[in-house]
Formats: sequence, structure tokens, C-alpha cells
Amino acid sequence: MSNRTYADELFPQEVIEQHEEEMDISTNSVVLVSSPNPVEEANARIHVGWMTTRLDANENSDRQIAAYCTELGKFKYNFVVFPIGGVVRAYWKPSESIEIHPPCIDLPDVQLSNSLWETYINGKISEWIDCDSPDPLFAALSEEHLLKELNYVCYMGLQTMTIELKRISSPKTSAILNKWIWTRNTRFTVWIQLPAAIEKCLDYDGSTATASSDLWTIWSDFRNQCNNFSGVYLQVVLSLGANLPDELIESKLVERWKAEPLAGFVVESELFVTGRHGEACLPNAHLLLLKSLWSSDSLRLVLRATTDTFKYNMTIKSEYSLALRQAVRDVHFRRRRDDGSTDSAHSLNVGEYRDVLQAPLQPLSENLDSGVYNTFEQDKLKYEVYGEAVEGALKDLGADGRRQCIVYLLGGGRGPIGTKILRAEKEYNLKFRAGKDPLKVKLYIVEKNPNAIVTLKFMNARTWKRRVTIVESDMRSLPGIARDRGFEQPDIIVSELLGSFGDNELSPECLDGVTEFLKPTTISIPQKYTSYVAPIMSSHLHQTIRAQSIPFLSRALPAHGRGEPELDEEGTWVQRYPQGHVRNNMDQIYVVFLSKYIALADKTKPVFTFDHPNFQNTTNERSNCIEFKMDRNADVMGFAGYFDLQLYKNIMLSIEPSTHTSGMMSWFPAVIPLRHQLRVANGDKIRLKIERKVDAKGVWYEWCVELEKPTGEITTTPVQNPNGESYYMRM
Amino acid sequence: MSNRTYADELFPQEVIEQHEEEMDISTNSVVLVSSPNPVEEANARIHVGWMTTRLDANENSDRQIAAYCTELGKFKYNFVVFPIGGVVRAYWKPSESIEIHPPCIDLPDVQLSNSLWETYINGKISEWIDCDSPDPLFAALSEEHLLKELNYVCYMGLQTMTIELKRISSPKTSAILNKWIWTRNTRFTVWIQLPAAIEKCLDYDGSTATASSDLWTIWSDFRNQCNNFSGVYLQVVLSLGANLPDELIESKLVERWKAEPLAGFVVESELFVTGRHGEACLPNAHLLLLKSLWSSDSLRLVLRATTDTFKYNMTIKSEYSLALRQAVRDVHFRRRRDDGSTDSAHSLNVGEYRDVLQAPLQPLSENLDSGVYNTFEQDKLKYEVYGEAVEGALKDLGADGRRQCIVYLLGGGRGPIGTKILRAEKEYNLKFRAGKDPLKVKLYIVEKNPNAIVTLKFMNARTWKRRVTIVESDMRSLPGIARDRGFEQPDIIVSELLGSFGDNELSPECLDGVTEFLKPTTISIPQKYTSYVAPIMSSHLHQTIRAQSIPFLSRALPAHGRGEPELDEEGTWVQRYPQGHVRNNMDQIYVVFLSKYIALADKTKPVFTFDHPNFQNTTNERSNCIEFKMDRNADVMGFAGYFDLQLYKNIMLSIEPSTHTSGMMSWFPAVIPLRHQLRVANGDKIRLKIERKVDAKGVWYEWCVELEKPTGEITTTPVQNPNGESYYMRM
Repeated sequence: MSNRTYADELFPQEVIEQHEEEMDISTNSVVLVSSPNPVEEANARIHVGWMTTRLDANENSDRQIAAYCTELGKFKYNFVVFPIGGVVRAYWKPSESIEIHPPCIDLPDVQLSNSLWETYINGKISEWIDCDSPDPLFAALSEEHLLKELNYVCYMGLQTMTIELKRISSPKTSAILNKWIWTRNTRFTVWIQLPAAIEKCLDYDGSTATASSDLWTIWSDFRNQCNNFSGVYLQVVLSLGANLPDELIESKLVERWKAEPLAGFVVESELFVTGRHGEACLPNAHLLLLKSLWSSDSLRLVLRATTDTFKYNMTIKSEYSLALRQAVRDVHFRRRRDDGSTDSAHSLNVGEYRDVLQAPLQPLSENLDSGVYNTFEQDKLKYEVYGEAVEGALKDLGADGRRQCIVYLLGGGRGPIGTKILRAEKEYNLKFRAGKDPLKVKLYIVEKNPNAIVTLKFMNARTWKRRVTIVESDMRSLPGIARDRGFEQPDIIVSELLGSFGDNELSPECLDGVTEFLKPTTISIPQKYTSYVAPIMSSHLHQTIRAQSIPFLSRALPAHGRGEPELDEEGTWVQRYPQGHVRNNMDQIYVVFLSKYIALADKTKPVFTFDHPNFQNTTNERSNCIEFKMDRNADVMGFAGYFDLQLYKNIMLSIEPSTHTSGMMSWFPAVIPLRHQLRVANGDKIRLKIERKVDAKGVWYEWCVELEKPTGEITTTPVQNPNGESYYMRM
Repeated sequence: MSNRTYADELFPQEVIEQHEEEMDISTNSVVLVSSPNPVEEANARIHVGWMTTRLDANENSDRQIAAYCTELGKFKYNFVVFPIGGVVRAYWKPSESIEIHPPCIDLPDVQLSNSLWETYINGKISEWIDCDSPDPLFAALSEEHLLKELNYVCYMGLQTMTIELKRISSPKTSAILNKWIWTRNTRFTVWIQLPAAIEKCLDYDGSTATASSDLWTIWSDFRNQCNNFSGVYLQVVLSLGANLPDELIESKLVERWKAEPLAGFVVESELFVTGRHGEACLPNAHLLLLKSLWSSDSLRLVLRATTDTFKYNMTIKSEYSLALRQAVRDVHFRRRRDDGSTDSAHSLNVGEYRDVLQAPLQPLSENLDSGVYNTFEQDKLKYEVYGEAVEGALKDLGADGRRQCIVYLLGGGRGPIGTKILRAEKEYNLKFRAGKDPLKVKLYIVEKNPNAIVTLKFMNARTWKRRVTIVESDMRSLPGIARDRGFEQPDIIVSELLGSFGDNELSPECLDGVTEFLKPTTISIPQKYTSYVAPIMSSHLHQTIRAQSIPFLSRALPAHGRGEPELDEEGTWVQRYPQGHVRNNMDQIYVVFLSKYIALADKTKPVFTFDHPNFQNTTNERSNCIEFKMDRNADVMGFAGYFDLQLYKNIMLSIEPSTHTSGMMSWFPAVIPLRHQLRVANGDKIRLKIERKVDAKGVWYEWCVELEKPTGEITTTPVQNPNGESYYMRM
């Protein structure tokens, strides 16, 4: 359903305004003078719908739907969940003895304009339809009529429809829907409405129900059976009755819905209680639940009347919609203020990157461009800390009274760290040499990108007073060049070659390339870095990674794996994917500003550590097995990756959540996906087995997951990215 | 280059306004009072750039580019075509005797913000670079430095760059660019600037140049060598000198550029003449050329100074930019008024469909939805004419004084023609029965779409006073149903089952299905329809059809060919394309509101004709060979398809251009593409060989083209859509 409905067309503005005034007076007359009026604003922003039931609809409603909707609009319902085949058909009761003939679909389209059907009506599948009924005849009849109603949703051009699940297990319903959504050239959003509690399911059996049956499992099984179709089109709706089950109260269990495509909530009228001023309001547990899951105003609230009180007390309809809006009205504001709270976050517009997949940079094999350098340079904080680290090293080295210090900046980019090194020299001299016997830094900047060299030369002339020796070279050729040109050996080498997963921009390989040129006393800034992982859950991320496709104009762009574009028989360029596109998507590491996800562990665990200088020339191959114990039923989509960086002694930079350098925006987390979401149960153990492999031309990771059940049973997922076929970091 | 540049940031508004006032006064003081000021409006709307040359730039410009641009902004140039490697490098003269060492790229990025580089600067490749030079050493040097400059364009993040062609044939330059644009993950627009005349090409040789060498061929060869990369990113720029070659004067030749991705014009200052009031203006031939090709304000005009007059007479710079804007300023308005001129065009928003590919409907195998019916029903005109045809038939039949007429509407949809039939009855009785002995129409509406049946029933109750017998059935089952239910035989059958290419929605097959139920005297409305074709040229359409790709979420949607979605080994739905995606794209028929194209024939020619009723049960298979003689060098992308429809006697509907029913919008033309654009020369003949084939389950076309040279040499393109693998109309 779009954010903007056309309800305003249907309901003249005068009516709405008049009604708002009434409500304002009854609740809080002060509100009237403030502008914009918060009730009005919440009415516009938070969409509350009405679910039609037997209690309020009759056989006339089907052919008087405009009047019916107008009436609801007066009570501030923005949309209606209405039976797609009409009321007469929806509430038909199949009688077992006689021949089965449900009433025809009879909800004529010409009653409303197409745009109103699209935006104002959510079509609900008839209540009696139950494809998973144990009665084969009735199941077959249900299948036939489910298809008819799906067809009618298409015919009417609705943007949203609802299927209410009645059972813990609905394999036939999901099989029909699975075929439908993948093979029908009509896109609309399907709401899968869950039962209010597992005990209400038709197939619930107290003796067989185990700890592993919960509402979340009903949904995630259904989603899986629909091959995890996009959460834009297949969404889940929670039904809230008076008694909330534990899984909708305990926060560890509740937060799983943040990793699912949650469309909203159906709230049963029986759960409303009477507030201090006699108004209808929600109980505390329900309020907490709604607030904790209200991640955006694109969620929807639907009122389902469970008694016919509203027939005798009309104002109660308005009170319900008001109470629902009030429940979530303030959540949104808090969240909005959270965004972009730091200057860096603001200037980098990080909000735009929420859940956007980025390929990790390959600055070694590809030259960065001016815009990327410019973006990096916005994160002032990182450079400050680099400056502190250099100053710390100068202080330690300068303690012997030396007058010169040779510093190499390796991979200088456009030079922002160079500026910080020269400033560190000045700071050091101010603080520790008191104006006499100053320590002079002799600075070399090594950079392989010929385009950045143009900038470095310009900076040297304009900003650095020609103090810097600029060396256009890959740093791995520096020992040879230094020999030829008589460069001094470094006292300090400074580099910033880190990716979101630490070593994934090949910092170890680059720095190893200069080792033979170092003195035994040479300090490397950074001294050490470590990567970390935590298992995560996120339907959205799984679907987004899987769904990437390659437009025609990108058919010859280099993939991220080992293969390169080739000229085909016809003389056109093409990149081939022998492993298939889906596997290619799933077997890569991504950089993502994670939003629609939850971590499935309280703490991350370390993966790989590298120390510099690596005088012993220790291999840069690594392998590790990291175990996490699962504390709830969940789907593991993969792992979030982080790193921390010891620049010099206690001067650190980190994106690991518990130690994250406050305000630093340079690195979003890495994501290491699994090919399929891995279903885990409370008490299971999972082990990420990950290897860092190196050959003559590059580096790659291979990974898989071992799942151990409390019974000791072990299963293992396939090894991903074998031989670097999909993600290969070129040297 | 985006429509909106950031030049305003660079050039303070006060300066611009002040300058505008001066100009207004000097040209026409009346303009000052009108609002909005047309000069101001043209300045904002029409983008004129300045091409930097040796005449105005010096070695300081490279490091003072902000000041340089600001100065140009004062004279109303919205962007600058500037050497990407800097002026010093661009105008270097290679000396043959000494070692070759061109100056380094030296145009530092930090002088301007990234967004200004992006939008304000068009980077030009250095003038001396000539990869196709006969000197192999110099060609190799040129290749190396062309790559460096392309890299630098990426580094700077420019959105547009220019390569000026010097030669009739540039295979090495195009090979480098072909690899670059297809395999580099950076998108910018490349302007290929043509020489002002074929005689100016370095490889021009009067003795070998034939009639077939023209500027258009230089461009289209280059485009082909770049594998026809998208016209969004690879565009052509025409250079206009004082003497226009014939091909830029003769309209048949000029209009070819409407079928190419034309970015704009480089106008040399030497061609300006002095107008009546002493102002600079363009000669008539140039004005005509610009106006005839000015299809949108996204085109660009660039001034290239050929003398240094502007150094001594600064105001001439403003006069040039003013004169260029004035040349095209009014073209736009005329065109805008052309759009949506009829009521139907307006309510259908046809402008949005310009050059958008649509798959032809398959109303027989797929049920139309409410929105599609609603759109059709907006075209009132079509239904009016149907009403006239029915009235005509009633008049002829009613001449014998009969009191009843049996009419079947076959494929009634939601019934709009039904309403017209009942109105025709009323009109007929008013005009010819003068209120007594009225003729009564007994109307049956046959419709196979169960969803539309809901509407038809509602219409029957609400609008038609239950006069209509609604039959839910495929019309091909009507004879059987009529027998069972005792329906009378029809006096008239009315249907509207036509596609853009006439028979392509299977009207012949559907109507044949009722033949056995007809009387020998039954009138069919329509009586006859014929399809037509004309060869067309359009790079854009070729590229758009080829570039269609299938997003992941659409991987299981049914294709338009014979195959259907299948369940794969993993239990997921998928549609396979054994013929490959590109061939699948090229071997289909599309429906397109054609805009960026030209017809390569003055007249269409007929293809297939069908007459109804088809009492003889003549086969609906057809085959035809349609010849066109080419009157210019061109690329044939395929054929536009049309049809006309004889409803009853002289009552016609047509979308064939020469007889197009004025104001009718229901059908856009069909397009029958070729797999590759077919190069033809003036005097060649082409023959479209097209077959309509039928089997038990459906109908398909197969087609190919024969090209005959004046020498008699014949080549044939491959048969497209063999066996209906890519485009199959299901029965």
C-alpha cells in the first residue's frame, strides 16, 4: 500500500477537519492551537485500517462499497481490509451434508475508480477457504476458489491483499502462493496474517506442540515455502489478541520481527482497556510490543472488531483509531532524531546507505576516484586519530634527542594523512622541543594511483611547501626504487589500507612488500588489526543479495571473482559466470550499513589478526572456526564482519560494536552471507569455518557453517566461494 | 550532462541578472516588462557551452579553472568543454625528430568541488591524440595516452567527455572505447564529435571517397564498432562550419539524426553573420538545421571560437550565446503544444509512453484486468465509430421492416460496445421507424473473462435494464452452448479483437470459432482488416529492445514464447530461455508509441488481410514479401506495423499513418525488430519476408529480410522467432 492514499478524494476535507476538531476537544483542547496539529499530523502519517467482519458488513455492503468506505473515513480509517469476493461469499458456511457451492465473487469494480481500489482496499481471501483442510474434497474446493480470488485481486488491480493463516502448517496454501507470486506478471503485496496464538491454530494439538512451534516459525516456514520471495511483496502481519503469547513479550524473541518483512498488526478490539480519562487505550504489554517493532510509518495498524459494541457506541470507532495512532505516534520522532547525529554522519548522508549493498573496494587492483577520496576525507575523526598515533611515535622516537625522523606514508591517496603527519611534527616540537632543536620529519608519500599523483603534486606545491617527496609507485616496488634513488630507510611507516573486515583490502600483502626496506626499529602505524564476526538474522538482506541482477549494459563489467571479461565469438565483450548468477551473488562479501537485521549473539568474536611489521614474514593465510550458541529459534542469514585497528600503543580505531570509535563513519560493517538462510533452534550451536587463502595473483576467503544440534547431530553448509570464483581480491 | 547544472553556485545570481538586463535592453526593451522574461527563461532552459581552444586558454588556465569558468559564466555559458589533461598537454605539438614525451596530465581535482566537475566540465581528449595514425609509433603512443585520459575522466568523476574524430575510419579508437565502455564500472556520457565535413578528415582522399562516405556513415560505423552501446552514454555531436555539406541540408538526409543519439552541436564562430540590428546571428541554412533537429532541450550547443575576435570585442561572447539560444528557443514551445492535443491523448497521458516497449496483449490466453479495460474505455471515439457501424448494419437489415434483430457482442469486456449497440438501436428507431414498429435488438454478450463477467452482470442490472443475455464462455464454445440453450442465430456479430498489427490478438481464430453458428446473411462487424509495414531507423529502439533484462524477481514470469515456467531441481519456479536473452528480446513483436525514429519509406505497404465471416473456412496462415527501395544511406532497425479496420461498408478505423483515425489513441504502432541494424545504401532494395503460422495451440510470425544491392548481390538475415520460440500467441 502506498504511503499516500487517495482517501482524501473520497472523504471531503471538510468532513475530516470537522471530525478532527471534535476529537481534539474531547482529548486535549490545547492541541487545537499548536501548529501543525499533532493529531492531524498523526492522522496523515500513521495509517490505520479497518478489517471488515460479519459484525459490521452485510450483503448490501458489496454493492455500496463507496458509502461503506466513506463512513469509515469519518472515523479516521485510511483503508479497509475487505473480502475480495464480497461479504456474502466471505462469510459463507460450508455445510457438510449438501453439495458444495460457495456464492460467486460479486464485488463489482465500477463502484470505485481504479485508483481507489488500488490504494484504499486491501482484499482479504474468504474466511472459509482452507486449502490445508484434512478433508480432501474441501481442500480441493478451497484451492480452486483461492485461485479465483487471487485472479480477482489482479483483475481489480489491488496493491495489497491478505491471507489469514489458520494452521501451524499450510503447505498447500504456500505451494499455490509460491507458484502464483513467482510466475504471475502482476505485482501486489500479500499480507500473511498470523493467528493470534499458536493455540488458536486448527491443527494445534497440545500433545505434539513442542517448544519449537511458535508464531515466528509458522511465518518463516511459510516464507521459506514461498522461496523467500521479496519482502516488498510478501509480508507478515501479526494478530494481537487480549492475551499476548510469551514470544510477543520476551524481547529476544520479539526482536526477530525486526529481521522480517513485517507489514503491521491486526489489533482485536477486545484488548482495549479504559484509560484514566475514560478513553479507549491499549494495555501496557501491547503498547511495548508496538513501540518496539514500530520501525517506520510504512507499517500499518488494522482494527478488527471482536464484539459489536461499536454498533451502539459509534464514537468508540474513532477512539480505537486514535488509540492506535497514539500508541506509535512518538516512536517515529525518536528514531528520526537518531539518524545522522554526528557531523560526519550528516555530511556523508549515511542514511541513504541503509541496507544498500556495496562491493568492498579493491584499491589495489582498481584506482580510486576523486569522489571516493573526497568522501573518505569527510571523516575528519579518523585523520585526527592517525595524527595522534604519529605524534605518539614521534614522541617515543624523539626521546633520544634526534633531529630527523624519516616517515613514509604508504598509499597516500590525495594526502590527508600526509597533512596530519606534518601537523604531528609541529605539535611534537611545540610540546616537547620548546622551539629549539626541532625534530624534522622527512616525509615520503608513496602512491600507485597516477591520477591521485596529480593531486599530491598540487598539494605539495600549494599546501606542503614542497617538503614532501612524492613517489609514484606501488609500495611493493618501494625497496627497489629506494635502492636506485638512494632513499633513507623509514623510522615510521604509516598506512591506511583497511577494509570493513580488516585485511580484506590486502593491507597484509601490501605492507609485507616493504618489509625488506625497513630497519629493525621501524614502527608501523598501524601495529595490528583484528577482524570480528557475529551471526545475524535478516530476511531483507538475504533477499537483497540474492536478487541482484545484471542489466544488459553491465553484462561485460568485471565480476568480483577470479574470472575477467572476455571477447565472445561475435566480438562483443562479456563477463561469464560459470557458477551461475545466484551463487555468484551469495558467495561474495559485501559492505552494508546494516539496518533491517538483528544480531544473534550478544558479543562478536575475533577471526583473524595481523601484526606489523611482519619481520618474520609469517604467512598471511589464516583459518579459524568460531562458535556461537543460539538462544532462540531463528534464521541465520550470515555474519556481520567488523575490525579494530591498533594504530600505535593504546591509540585505536574500531568498528566492532562494543568498542566502536564514536562518530567515525569511514567503514560500514562487512556481511558474509550464507547461500540459504540456516534455520536454528534455541540451544543449537553454529560454527563459522573461514579460511583466508593466498595465491600468486590474489587473496580470497572460503567459508561454511557447521550446525550442531543439542543431540550432537551435525550438518554442514557447502563451502562458499571455492577458489575465489565469486570474490577474489586481486594483488 | 544533467539538465540542471550547478553553474548558479559558481556564478552569483546578481552578476547573471545584471547581465541579462543589459542584453534585454540591447535587443528588445519590451521584453523587460513581460514575466517570465523569455531571455532569462531561455538561459535557464537551453544549455550553451564554450569549447576551450588555443585561442582563449593558456598554461595558467589549468590551475585557475574556477576563475576561468566564472568568467565564461558571465557571458552565459552553462558549461565548458575543457581539455581533460589540461591545456598545456592538449595543445602539445609532437615533433617528429625528437623523442616523444607529451606533457603530463595536470588538471588538479581539488580546484573545484566534485559536483562542479561532474556537472560543469565536459572533458575533451587532447587534440594531438590520434590512435588511427598511419605512423605505428605515434598510434601506439596515442593509444597509451587515450587510456590515461579516459582514466582521468573517471578519476575526476566527470559526467560527460568528448572525443573529436579526425578520420573517416577510426577502428583503433573505437576498439579502445568499445572495451572501455562495456567493461569499466564507471558510467559517463561520451560525445563523439564529428568533423565539420568529410573533406576535412585526415584520411580523406578525393579519389577514393564514394557517394557512400558521409558524416552519418562515420558516426554509424563508430557506433557499430562500439557494439551500439546505449545512446544514453554514447552520443554524437555534429560540428557546424560555415559551409554545410549537402547531408546537413537535404531534409531526407538530415532527418536520419532524429534516429540517432544526437547530443548536440559544436558551432564554429566563423559561421556567424551580422543581423539587421548589427547583432551576431546564424545563417538561414544553419538555423533550419538546428530547428529541424532540436527535438528537446536536453540537446546542447557548444561555441567553438575559430578566430580570436572575442579577445578584442568581449560582448561578442554574449552575442554568440544569445544567438545560439535564440536559434532554438521557439522550437521547444511548438513541440510542447503538439503533445496531448486531443482529449483522449490527454486523459490517457500518452506522452508517458513515448518509446516505451510494451508487450502486445494476449487477451485470449490471459484475462485483462479492470485497469486495462478502464484505459481502453477512455478512448470514446473508437466506441462512437463502432456505434455508427452497428447503426449502419441495423439500417440495412431493418429495411425489410423486421421487428427484431439478434446481435452477439463477442468478447464484450466490461461492455462499452454493448452500450453503443443499445444506443444504435435507439438512434435507428428515432431516425427510421419514427416511433412506431420499433426494431428491437436482442443482445447477447459473450465474454470468457470470469472477472469481467462480474462487471457485466452489474452493468446489466444497473444500466441495461436486464435486457442483455450474458454468456460466460470462450466464443469458440458458443455454437455448442447456443445449441444446448436454444439461442437464436445472429443477424449481426460485433467484435473488437484487434492488436496493433491487426490479427495479432487472434481475431481470425476467435471469429472462425463461431462460423458454424452463423446464418449465411450474418453481418460481421468488422468485415475486414489489413496490416501494414514500413521500414524504420532508430538506434534508440534497437538498443532499448536489446537491453531488456530480467530482474531476479521476474525470473519465473512466463516469457512471450512457446515455453512456460518450470519447477527446477531445487523446487523453485523458473522460466528458461534456451535461445538466450538477447535473441529472445530481438525476436518479439512490440507495441511502441514511436518517437525517436524515422520511417525509411514514404508509404506503408499492406501485409495480411482477413475477411469476416470466413464462411469458406480459409486458412489463417499467411505469407508475404514486401519490398521497399531505399533512398539514402541508413540503418534499418526493423519495421513499424499498423492496421486498418473496415467495420461496416465505409465505416473505418485506422492507425495506418496516411489514414489514421483522428484522435483515436487505442493502438500504438507495432514494431517488428531485426536482430542487428541492417546497413543499407541509397538505391538498395530490402524485402521483408514474413509468415503467419498456426498450430494447435497458437499462432506466431517468422520473419527475415532480404537485402538486394544495385549490383544484384543478395544477402538474407536469419529467420527470426523460428517455431514461435520467443513470441507465440496462445489460443
